[in-house]
Amino acid sequence: MTDQPIESLTRLKEQFQKLPGIGPRSAERLAFHVLREPRAYAAALAQAVLDVKDKVIRCRTCFNLTEVDPCRICADPGRDHGEVWVVEQPKDLLVLEATGLIRGTYHVLMGHIAPLDGVEPEDLTIDALVQRVRAGDVRELVLALNPTLDGDGTALHIQSLVAGAGVTVSRPARGLAVGSQLEYATTGMLEAAIRGRTNA
Amino acid sequence: MTDQPIESLTRLKEQFQKLPGIGPRSAERLAFHVLREPRAYAAALAQAVLDVKDKVIRCRTCFNLTEVDPCRICADPGRDHGEVWVVEQPKDLLVLEATGLIRGTYHVLMGHIAPLDGVEPEDLTIDALVQRVRAGDVRELVLALNPTLDGDGTALHIQSLVAGAGVTVSRPARGLAVGSQLEYATTGMLEAAIRGRTNA
Repeated sequence: MTDQPIESLTRLKEQFQKLPGIGPRSAERLAFHVLREPRAYAAALAQAVLDVKDKVIRCRTCFNLTEVDPCRICADPGRDHGEVWVVEQPKDLLVLEATGLIRGTYHVLMGHIAPLDGVEPEDLTIDALVQRVRAGDVRELVLALNPTLDGDGTALHIQSLVAGAGVTVSRPARGLAVGSQLEYATTGMLEAAIRGRTNA
Repeated sequence: MTDQPIESLTRLKEQFQKLPGIGPRSAERLAFHVLREPRAYAAALAQAVLDVKDKVIRCRTCFNLTEVDPCRICADPGRDHGEVWVVEQPKDLLVLEATGLIRGTYHVLMGHIAPLDGVEPEDLTIDALVQRVRAGDVRELVLALNPTLDGDGTALHIQSLVAGAGVTVSRPARGLAVGSQLEYATTGMLEAAIRGRTNA
């Protein structure tokens, strides 16, 4: 009759366990950690969890995650709005942004075409991308999708849709990963490196 | 000027990163996960985090975590209140409870004596334990501290404090870990197993 421990601790453990990569042991450790921390931490964590659901929306132009619509990138007059980098996920946008090399804007597809997983073109933001292109403001479309079969297939599909719209379509270069060793390179990396070799 | 991504997402990532074992990459993955889940999940997680701080207290008898004081174990007339299992942490109590073998009650010390880490006897609940013993209701004290140098030292200290109070002091048996292999046993395990050998 006393085998039920502390209800709120059990409940927190259960909630943590729903997070990816958090097993029963980790969930328990996290729950005990919250218990030991000052209430201010618990309040900040709880508020942050709610804020993410309540404040984060999608930019209606590029579909990136944002708290203001249009997002800061789409609203930035200092950006080159004629150059649109098409990515699969918001995370990919963050990775590109972090390089500090992108002067253009973005378009987040929200995934890639994968019929076997039930993801059809209309489940992505491809229509909106085509409309952006047809509106005439886009000069170059850089298809920065993942260099995978699905990414390549999605890129080809987009390419066929915008063909004849007078827009340059490009893709990021592929080849040997900088800093990697030739002996460990995959066939795909080697093939891209060999076919795409440039003059030294 | 646009290098600051979504503020609430960054904030949630920062809060997750304060949890033990959660690095920047995991924190980001968790934050994106919360973002993708229905708001009901975020609400449940936030509430659980707050509840743990607001509802969990310490039992004034045994110092275990509880939502009611005295805790369910201390309040249970079916328990043997003359047998008190002394443990370092609430987690240790849970481990013992899970065996279903304990008919007695508990006393949670809230750590072990560790002068080098600044933990003195008065930082633990040792005084309260001695008072429980002196009150005369305790028949047997089982010192179920960790079988470590610090645990042993703390056990010895408690033993000296209750000497002459007419209480039996015992410790859980030590020896070879059941299911382990002799060839991998540590010196400490072997020593305990050899010295404590019993008739077959």
